Amino acid sequence: MTTDFAATRAQFLLPEGIIYLDGNSLGPLPRAAAARVASCVTEEWGKMLIRGWNAAGWMDQPSRLGTRIGRLIGAEPGSVVLGDTLSIKVYQALASALDMVPGRRVILSDTGNFPSDLYMAEGLCRTLGPDYRLVTVAPEEVAGAITEEVAVLMLTEVDYRTGRKHDMAALTAAAHAKGALAIWDLAHSAGALPVDLAGAGADFAVGCTYKYLNSGPGGPAFIYVAPRHQDAARPALSGWLGHAEPFAFDLHYRPGTGVERMRVGTPPILQLAALEASLDIWDQVDMAALRTRSIALCDAFIAGVEASCPDLALASPRNAAERGSQVSFRHAQGYAIMQALIAEGVIGDFRAPDILRFGFTPLYTSDADVSQAVAILSQIMASGSWDRPEFHARAKVT
Amino acid sequence: MTTDFAATRAQFLLPEGIIYLDGNSLGPLPRAAAARVASCVTEEWGKMLIRGWNAAGWMDQPSRLGTRIGRLIGAEPGSVVLGDTLSIKVYQALASALDMVPGRRVILSDTGNFPSDLYMAEGLCRTLGPDYRLVTVAPEEVAGAITEEVAVLMLTEVDYRTGRKHDMAALTAAAHAKGALAIWDLAHSAGALPVDLAGAGADFAVGCTYKYLNSGPGGPAFIYVAPRHQDAARPALSGWLGHAEPFAFDLHYRPGTGVERMRVGTPPILQLAALEASLDIWDQVDMAALRTRSIALCDAFIAGVEASCPDLALASPRNAAERGSQVSFRHAQGYAIMQALIAEGVIGDFRAPDILRFGFTPLYTSDADVSQAVAILSQIMASGSWDRPEFHARAKVT
Repeated sequence: MTTDFAATRAQFLLPEGIIYLDGNSLGPLPRAAAARVASCVTEEWGKMLIRGWNAAGWMDQPSRLGTRIGRLIGAEPGSVVLGDTLSIKVYQALASALDMVPGRRVILSDTGNFPSDLYMAEGLCRTLGPDYRLVTVAPEEVAGAITEEVAVLMLTEVDYRTGRKHDMAALTAAAHAKGALAIWDLAHSAGALPVDLAGAGADFAVGCTYKYLNSGPGGPAFIYVAPRHQDAARPALSGWLGHAEPFAFDLHYRPGTGVERMRVGTPPILQLAALEASLDIWDQVDMAALRTRSIALCDAFIAGVEASCPDLALASPRNAAERGSQVSFRHAQGYAIMQALIAEGVIGDFRAPDILRFGFTPLYTSDADVSQAVAILSQIMASGSWDRPEFHARAKVT
Repeated sequence: MTTDFAATRAQFLLPEGIIYLDGNSLGPLPRAAAARVASCVTEEWGKMLIRGWNAAGWMDQPSRLGTRIGRLIGAEPGSVVLGDTLSIKVYQALASALDMVPGRRVILSDTGNFPSDLYMAEGLCRTLGPDYRLVTVAPEEVAGAITEEVAVLMLTEVDYRTGRKHDMAALTAAAHAKGALAIWDLAHSAGALPVDLAGAGADFAVGCTYKYLNSGPGGPAFIYVAPRHQDAARPALSGWLGHAEPFAFDLHYRPGTGVERMRVGTPPILQLAALEASLDIWDQVDMAALRTRSIALCDAFIAGVEASCPDLALASPRNAAERGSQVSFRHAQGYAIMQALIAEGVIGDFRAPDILRFGFTPLYTSDADVSQAVAILSQIMASGSWDRPEFHARAKVT
């Protein structure tokens, strides 16, 4: 296990002149990923052709990489599998969980959840019928809202806008105490901080790999099913690769063993190759040291910005124990300020209506990145240079 | 438009010593795809980082490539979008279609359909409730089984085992005459033969890109929604990229315009880059010429095998008009025979229980491929060389 984050930084391609504080949205390229993907394309696809499913191990890649991600999130071996997108995995987990709590029809979530999780829950409720509903409350009201009507508590551990972190163990226990199951979305947790799914007693978890796990744009999602539920969890998205015998081509579905039943269709082999190269770095990372370093980076950024930018209001919890690995500030002109920052080479992102969001990723964020980002931001704020027409023009994706 | 298939063949990497007759399972590598994917990895992901969503056009890639695929399948511009896997797209199309035929609860399909389509229908029926059911009949009995109970007719146009082709226009009209909608799976049609979705009046269609469209292992699927249905089709898998304003981060789902609402989560950008390189070839292909050439290749293979391998029974329709672009033969020892063929460099595949399957793909299959494959197969059959222990041992994926 490594605690040498200068060494991990050297394993990423970080463009000259860029301070990248958006790895919480899309992680940068692990240097080895370029060669790994190229080899997958030319040596595996190109030369093995269809034989790659066996010879190159493509078919087992979703489980093999799942177990490697499992270490980062405290999952039991063999309880995580890759595939699809995070939204699809949310639907899968919700459908299975609702099925396991007969007689209850309420999904409880919070207004800080990533909207796609809520949209997928809406779509599932509509499919299940008029008795099913999604209830959302403010993040701080979740614990009090877990009634005996609730079938499933579905939360994202770390708020995508503010970085506010829920207490996974406490809320899972509160859900269980009322007879509900708990699903955790780890989009802003996996690779951001140590997660202990098994210790927290989580029932299901889902997450994506293109943020802190650096699998590249559109890298696949993952799903965790607690071992105690794996035989009971009935997939609603019952695809052939989740079948007990995919190549028997039976006419009826029989779920496969363990978390494998959550596989659906053909896995995205090129994207998985990129993820594999990233996990070669992650396999060596001491998660406790990562957390210590993450907190130091975030605290330094908060201190620097608060000392020099009085117009920016901290939107993240000040207490590091209540935060993920990002820091957000509010400003009514946040969009333009972020565009001005990006023009100066400091890449964070903006989340409507007024959030400037900065991700700190110990694998490659340096102390110099933090101090330079603070210096550039304070110069932009002091000079008002963000208030130019080009910085107010909206792009499609921000 | 090209009719020069020697020129298209030169655009693929075809390993020395291999006769590849399995492009109906996984298409080979377009030579330009290696450089295109490498550029996507190092120039786009590596250097643009998060900015690639706008600067490299990643966000619009699923629609842009969808329209290019649309030409191959007779879809109206803007009515096809890429994403997810074929199984997920089947679920999406089925859920939307069932929702549009209120009061009816039956999905009709056939026993020749690819099992995952049936599994996904089973999973959806189970989610919708006990009144919903999937009914399957033999392929030749489909027309007679379309009753006024049927909400949706879901068929794969070309049978994955035998290559038998349904009459899309006639069966769609028969479904409409009974008040049902028709969903067509084009897994073995897109790029295999001309398809005329608009002319046939199809309501929905789905397909994959890693077979005849050569997008590489795990390339994304596509979905077609007829323009007349696009405003009414309510997505059950209601993900954020199908939202009217994904980056408004609303708490409630509002479907986007047109087929875009069938997008779910973040698209697989590396896989789409490979597909883009393949479509650069496809954009030039005359589909009528492709069909003529496909039939010539298939007919030559059938004639050659029947003349020299009396123990192999044709499993595909003899009439080319009733076939896709593959030819299958039956033999009780089909598995071992296929392994012997592969050991000799002729790659087809086996489908349980007794099908030897050979795909003919005019973009890169030559006349010499056909005659050499026939010669090797007849030598194996005449000598009985397939009957060795190593050819009977089963691999995980066949």
